[in-house]
Amino acid sequence: MTDAVARAERLAPRMAERAADYDRDAAFPRRDIEELREEGLLGLMVPSRLGGLGAGFEEYTRVAVALAGGNASTALLFNMHASVTGGLASISDELALGMGAAESFFDARDRILRAAVDGAMYGVAITEPGVGSRLSELRSTYEAEEGRYRIRGTKAFCSGAGHLDGYLVAARRAGSAEDQPTISYFLVPKGDGLRVDDTWDPLGMRATASNGMEIDAWVGEDGLLGGVEGLVLPLANAMPQWLVASYAAVYVGLAEAAIREAVSYLRTRPVAGERGALANLAPVRQRVGRAEAEVHASRLALERAARLVDLRPGDPETNRWTYRAKLLAGDAAMRVAASMAEACGLGALRRGAPLERILRDARSGAIMPPSSDVTGNHLGAIALGAEDGLAPW
Amino acid sequence: MTDAVARAERLAPRMAERAADYDRDAAFPRRDIEELREEGLLGLMVPSRLGGLGAGFEEYTRVAVALAGGNASTALLFNMHASVTGGLASISDELALGMGAAESFFDARDRILRAAVDGAMYGVAITEPGVGSRLSELRSTYEAEEGRYRIRGTKAFCSGAGHLDGYLVAARRAGSAEDQPTISYFLVPKGDGLRVDDTWDPLGMRATASNGMEIDAWVGEDGLLGGVEGLVLPLANAMPQWLVASYAAVYVGLAEAAIREAVSYLRTRPVAGERGALANLAPVRQRVGRAEAEVHASRLALERAARLVDLRPGDPETNRWTYRAKLLAGDAAMRVAASMAEACGLGALRRGAPLERILRDARSGAIMPPSSDVTGNHLGAIALGAEDGLAPW
Amino acid sequence: MTDAVARAERLAPRMAERAADYDRDAAFPRRDIEELREEGLLGLMVPSRLGGLGAGFEEYTRVAVALAGGNASTALLFNMHASVTGGLASISDELALGMGAAESFFDARDRILRAAVDGAMYGVAITEPGVGSRLSELRSTYEAEEGRYRIRGTKAFCSGAGHLDGYLVAARRAGSAEDQPTISYFLVPKGDGLRVDDTWDPLGMRATASNGMEIDAWVGEDGLLGGVEGLVLPLANAMPQWLVASYAAVYVGLAEAAIREAVSYLRTRPVAGERGALANLAPVRQRVGRAEAEVHASRLALERAARLVDLRPGDPETNRWTYRAKLLAGDAAMRVAASMAEACGLGALRRGAPLERILRDARSGAIMPPSSDVTGNHLGAIALGAEDGLAPW
Amino acid sequence: MTDAVARAERLAPRMAERAADYDRDAAFPRRDIEELREEGLLGLMVPSRLGGLGAGFEEYTRVAVALAGGNASTALLFNMHASVTGGLASISDELALGMGAAESFFDARDRILRAAVDGAMYGVAITEPGVGSRLSELRSTYEAEEGRYRIRGTKAFCSGAGHLDGYLVAARRAGSAEDQPTISYFLVPKGDGLRVDDTWDPLGMRATASNGMEIDAWVGEDGLLGGVEGLVLPLANAMPQWLVASYAAVYVGLAEAAIREAVSYLRTRPVAGERGALANLAPVRQRVGRAEAEVHASRLALERAARLVDLRPGDPETNRWTYRAKLLAGDAAMRVAASMAEACGLGALRRGAPLERILRDARSGAIMPPSSDVTGNHLGAIALGAEDGLAPW
Repeated sequence: MTDAVARAERLAPRMAERAADYDRDAAFPRRDIEELREEGLLGLMVPSRLGGLGAGFEEYTRVAVALAGGNASTALLFNMHASVTGGLASISDELALGMGAAESFFDARDRILRAAVDGAMYGVAITEPGVGSRLSELRSTYEAEEGRYRIRGTKAFCSGAGHLDGYLVAARRAGSAEDQPTISYFLVPKGDGLRVDDTWDPLGMRATASNGMEIDAWVGEDGLLGGVEGLVLPLANAMPQWLVASYAAVYVGLAEAAIREAVSYLRTRPVAGERGALANLAPVRQRVGRAEAEVHASRLALERAARLVDLRPGDPETNRWTYRAKLLAGDAAMRVAASMAEACGLGALRRGAPLERILRDARSGAIMPPSSDVTGNHLGAIALGAEDGLAPW
Repeated sequence: MTDAVARAERLAPRMAERAADYDRDAAFPRRDIEELREEGLLGLMVPSRLGGLGAGFEEYTRVAVALAGGNASTALLFNMHASVTGGLASISDELALGMGAAESFFDARDRILRAAVDGAMYGVAITEPGVGSRLSELRSTYEAEEGRYRIRGTKAFCSGAGHLDGYLVAARRAGSAEDQPTISYFLVPKGDGLRVDDTWDPLGMRATASNGMEIDAWVGEDGLLGGVEGLVLPLANAMPQWLVASYAAVYVGLAEAAIREAVSYLRTRPVAGERGALANLAPVRQRVGRAEAEVHASRLALERAARLVDLRPGDPETNRWTYRAKLLAGDAAMRVAASMAEACGLGALRRGAPLERILRDARSGAIMPPSSDVTGNHLGAIALGAEDGLAPW
Repeated sequence: MTDAVARAERLAPRMAERAADYDRDAAFPRRDIEELREEGLLGLMVPSRLGGLGAGFEEYTRVAVALAGGNASTALLFNMHASVTGGLASISDELALGMGAAESFFDARDRILRAAVDGAMYGVAITEPGVGSRLSELRSTYEAEEGRYRIRGTKAFCSGAGHLDGYLVAARRAGSAEDQPTISYFLVPKGDGLRVDDTWDPLGMRATASNGMEIDAWVGEDGLLGGVEGLVLPLANAMPQWLVASYAAVYVGLAEAAIREAVSYLRTRPVAGERGALANLAPVRQRVGRAEAEVHASRLALERAARLVDLRPGDPETNRWTYRAKLLAGDAAMRVAASMAEACGLGALRRGAPLERILRDARSGAIMPPSSDVTGNHLGAIALGAEDGLAPW
Repeated sequence: MTDAVARAERLAPRMAERAADYDRDAAFPRRDIEELREEGLLGLMVPSRLGGLGAGFEEYTRVAVALAGGNASTALLFNMHASVTGGLASISDELALGMGAAESFFDARDRILRAAVDGAMYGVAITEPGVGSRLSELRSTYEAEEGRYRIRGTKAFCSGAGHLDGYLVAARRAGSAEDQPTISYFLVPKGDGLRVDDTWDPLGMRATASNGMEIDAWVGEDGLLGGVEGLVLPLANAMPQWLVASYAAVYVGLAEAAIREAVSYLRTRPVAGERGALANLAPVRQRVGRAEAEVHASRLALERAARLVDLRPGDPETNRWTYRAKLLAGDAAMRVAASMAEACGLGALRRGAPLERILRDARSGAIMPPSSDVTGNHLGAIALGAEDGLAPW
C-alpha cells in the first residue's frame, strides 16, 4: 500500500474543524476537496502507469474510514469519485474486450483517469425520483444520433452535483424492451446539458450537495462508457462493492468518530452531585463498552469485504461480504451514535457540536441504498437458497 | 372534563403548519402561544373559582398530547407553564397550611393563577449547568434582606426564557448546610434581574427557546412561593408528576405524529419497479405495525399515570406510574421515529419535512430528565426493595 | 365481577408448587385442573342462568393472568376451555338466529355449558400440521350422512388432548370449493373416534399436553355447532379475541411471574466480593426497572383489549386492540424473561427452578399464533389502510 | 497449522447425532470425549516436542468452533481441557523462571502435558458458590505441611467433574491477607479427595457435567503449579484469553449451528396456504439475513482476538479483543438462536430437536462469566480511560 491512508489521516482533523460550517450551510465542502486534490488523493484509484496511486479497494476503504472521521459528507463525495475512477480502473483490457468494448474504450478510460490525477473530480447520477437505485427500472433515456448520444432524464441524490467535472450517468436506450432494457453508462462532462436543482437540505450528510439534476445533454461516441451499450447491469454484478461496501467504509469511520467524540465529552463532563465525570457512571460505561465492540466488529466486516474485493472481485462470497459490511456498518453507525447521544445527554447535542452532526449523519447509515431492510432480505434469501436473492438492482 | 382537548386539537394543525419555520430559526413559537392564550388554554390548570378551566392532570396530558401532535416544542413550553400553574393550583389551603405556608400565600397564589387566566405565561428555571436537575445539588442561592430576597445564579435549559412573564426559580439559602440544604421556590417576574443567554440552537425541540439565564434579581416577600422556605424537595416528592410524567405526554403525542406522518407518506410514495406504494412492502408493514402497538402502549401508561395523579397524588404507586410513563414514552418516541425514518427513507427526511423534525424532536425523549437510564435504575431499585430508589432528585 | 379472580389467586401458589413436576414430565396438570373444577372455575364463562359465574372477557383475562402466575401451562389449558365455553356463551339467541342457527342450537348450547358447570372441560382441535391456524386452509373434512356427521383429519397442538371431555373441531365440508370453503365447528366428545398421538415434549409450556389427534369420529346432528354449517370464519371475525387476546393474558401473567421470581432471587443472592446482594448492581437494577415498565405496559394493553371486547365485541377498534395485546404481551414475556435470566445468572437456571421454567414457557409468547411477525404485519397493514390487512385467518 | 480442524470437522456430525441423548440425560458425553482422544485432539495444545499437535490459540478456536457445531457441551469441556494444557504449554521456560518457578516445574509441566497426549483429560475447579469467578475473592484454602499441600473448599460449575483425570484448582493460602491474598493453582488428580456433587441439571449446556465438588485433598510438592505460590492472578493477567475468548469460540460455533439448522428447516417446511416453504416469507428472510451477518461479524472478532493472542499474548490490545469477542459471540448466540426460533416456530422446538437444544445452550452465552454486562462495563471503562477497568478478576 501507499501512504494514502496517512495523507487522509493528516487531512481529517482539518476537515473536522470545517465540518460544522459546511453542515450548517448544507454547502459543498470546497476546501476539503481542494485538499484532497492537493494531497493527490483524487488519483487514489488510478493505476500508477497513468500517474495515480494505484490503490485497490482495501486501501480505498481505509482512506474513506479516515476521511469520515473528519467529515462524513466529504468521505461520501470521495466515495462517489472513487467508485467512478476505481470502477473504470478495474475494467482490465481483458474484461473490456470480453464485454465487447470498442478499441476506443482504452483511450477514453485512460483519459478520464489521467484527468483525475490532474485534479478532475467525478460524481454519479444514477438514482431517480420514484425509482431509487433499482437499475433495471431507471427511466432516463438516451438516443443515438449521427455518432453522438442525447441523454435525457431526471436524477436525484447526485452527490456533488454542480461542483464536479463530470458525472457517470445511467440511462436506458429509448425504446428498449421494458423487461430486458439496455442500460448504459455515459460520462457527461459539466456543462449546459446539466441543470442542477440546488435544493439539497437534508437531516444529515448535509455537505454532500446531493442535488437533483435535469439532464438533456449530448455526448460524443467516447462518452458511452466502454464504447458498448448495456454495461450497467453486468458491471453492477461484476463489482457490486461500489454500490454497497464503499458506503460501509464511510459509516464505519463515522461510528468510530461518534465514540471518540463521546469519550472525550464524557471524560470531562461533571456529574451532578458526584465527584468525577459522567465517565464514571455505570450505564454510561455499559453504553460505551457495547458500542465500541459493535463498531470494531463492523470494521472487521468491512476489512474482510474489502480484502475479498481485491482478491476475488465479483465472487459470490465476496459479494455477500459486501452486503454484510453494509448492513453491519449502517446499523452500527445509527445505533452507536444514538447510544452515545443518550450517554452524553442534551449538553452534547447543541447544533454544530460534533456529536450532534455525527448523530444526524449516522441516521443515513441504515437507509442509504441498499438499506438495512433490503440488505437483510437479500442476505437471508441467499442463505435460504432462493434464486431471486441474487440481484437487488 | 372541559372542551380543552377539543380546543387543542383545533389548534394543532395550525401549529403543524408553522412548525417548520420556528424549527428552522430555533425561534420562540410566538403565534402558537398567542393562540393558546386566545383559546383560554393558559388558564387550563387554574381553578374555575379564579376563572380558569380547572383541569386536572389527566386533562392536562390530553391537551399536551394534542398539542405535541402539532408542534412538540410548543407542547413543551405549555408543559412548563402548566407545571407552574398546575402545581400551584394543587397546593390546597390545607396542604399549604400543613407545610407552614404564610397566610399571605393564598393571595399570592391566587394572583399568579388569575394572571394566567388573563394571559400570563410562566416558565421554569431549575436546571443548572454541571448540576442538571438534581434539586439537592443546585448552586443558585438566595439571601433575605429587609423583607426582600436577592436571588443569584446561573440556570440552563429554561424553556421560553426571554419570552415569558415569570419564572419559577429554585435556589438554596446562602449558607445552608451542604447535606441538608434549604431549597426554596421563587416566582421571578420578567425584568432586569434576568439576563437571557439567547443561544439555544439544539438538535431537536428547537422552538422551545430553552435558553440559559443569569439571575441577579430581587423579589418581595410574596415572591417566595408559599411564603415559606424549603418547599422544593417536599413538593418534588408530593407531586413528582410535574417533573416526570408531564414530559411523557409530549412524547406520546410526538410518537403518534411520527406514525401519522409516516403512514401518510408511505401510502402515496411509489416503490421502484412495483405497482403500488411503499405501504405494500413487508418490512414497511412490520415496522408500522410494531411501532403503532408500542405507541398505543405508551399512551395507556400515560393515561394510567395521569388518572392516578388525579386520584391519589403523591402515592408511591402513582409515582411509579409517572416513571413508567416517562420511560415508555421517551423510548417509544425515539424508537418509533427512528423506525419510521427507516420505513420512509431519505426522501422523507429533507430538512423541514415533518418527519425530519419529529425525528430530531423525538431524540430528546429518552434523554430529558429523568432520562431513560435514570428512570430504569429508579424503577429497578424500587422493585428490588432498595431504600435509596426513592428519591432521584 | 365475581370473586373468580380471588379464587384463581388462591389456587396459583399451589399450582406453582406443582409446576416443576408437571413440567419435568410434560404431564397434564391433573391436580391443577381438579382444583379449577372444585373452585367452580370451569363454569367461569357460563351464564348465571345456567349455573355459571357469567364472567365477561375482562374477568376471564384477570383469572388467566392470575393462573399463569402459578403455572402458565395450566392457564393455557384454561384458556382453551374458556374459549369454547365463552365463545359459545356469547352467541346470543339473536346472533345465533342471525347466522341461521337451527332451533336445536339453543338446547345444544345450554347442554354443553351446563356440563361445564358440572365439571366438564373442553379443548380445541383446530390447528393442523403444515397448515397452522390458517382457518381457510384447513384440510380436515366432514361429510353428512343420514343425519349424522363423519369428521376425519389430523390435528396438531390440541392442548389437553386425551384428558378432556370434548373438543371443538374445525373441518371443511368434503368437496366444498377450494377458494370459498364451508368450514364448520363440531363438538366431538371424547371416545374412540379420537386417537391421541401422545408425544408432546416441547421446550416450554410442557404441561399443556398439546398432542396431535387423528380424528375419525361420528357426531349427531347436534354435534354441529350452531346447527348450521360454515360458522368458523364468521365467528373468527366476530370474536377474534379468543384466537388472539386470550393468549395475551397468559403471557402477561407469565412475564409478571418472571419479574417476581427474579426480584426474589436477586434480593438474597450475594455478590462476589461485595457486601449486599445482586440487587445492588447497577446493570441488574436497570434490567429490572426496564422490564417492570414493559410488563406493566403490556398489562394495560391487555386490559384495554379485554374491556373493549366486553363493550364492543368484534368492532374494528376492539380487534386492533386484541392484536396489540398479543404482540405486546408475547414480546414482553420473551424479552423480560430473557433479561431476568441475564440479571440472575446461571444459578437461577437449574432445571426445575421457577425462572428456568418461566424462561422456556415465555419463549412461546412471540411464536404462538398469531405470531409477533404476523401480528406486526397485520397491524401495519391496517394502519396503512391495506384492505388485505383485515383477515389473517 | 495442523489438520486438527479437519479432524474436528469430521467428528462434529457424529457428535451432533449423539447430542440429543446426552442433553436429555444431562450426561457426560463419554463417546464424544473418546473420539477426541482417538483423534489425538486431547494433545492439541501440547508442544510437538512432547508429542502433541503444538497448536496455538487461533488453531484452538477453530477446533472449538467446529466441535460446537456438533455439540456445544462437548466443546465447552474441550475448552476447559485446552485451557489447562494450553495455559501450561504457554508458560515458557523463560516466563516460568521470571515468575519464580522452581526447577521442578519443568518436569511437572511436561509430565502433565505428556499425559494429555496419552489421553488424560483435565478440568477446571475455580468458580465457587457465592463468589463466582472473581479470583481474588475465592474462599477455598490450602496449607503447606511437611512438603505437601492440603486443599479444602467447595467449588461450583466444574465442567466434567467426576469424569476427568485431573482438575486445576485455585485456592488461597490459609491465613493470607484478605486484601492481598496469595492465590495458587494446584493440579489435583482424580481420587478420594474430590467428592462430586453430581446434580448438574441446568437449562442448557446440559452435557457438560458441570458439577460441584467438595475438595479435601492432599497433593505433593509438584502439585503446586509452577512450584511457586501466587500464580493465579499474574496468569489471569498474562493470558486472560483462557478465561474470556475461549468461550467465545464455543458460542460462535453454536450460533453458526443455529442458522444452519434453521435454514435446513425453513427450506423444507411448507407455509399454510401458500406454495413453497417458510423460506419464502419476507420476515423469515429478514431474520435469517440479519442473523447471518451478526454471526459472521462475531466470528471475525473471534479470529482477530485469537490471532492477537498468538502474536502478542497479554498485550492490552489483545486483551480488549478477547473481551470484544466474548461480548459479541455471547450476545450473537443468544440473539440469533432466539430469532431463528421465531422464524421457524414451535414445530422446530420439540424437545430434542437440534434447534431446541441450541436455543437452550445459546442462552448461556451472554451469562457465562465474564457476562455481557460485565464485559460491556469493562470495555467501556477502558475506552473511557478508567484505571479500574483493567482487572475484572
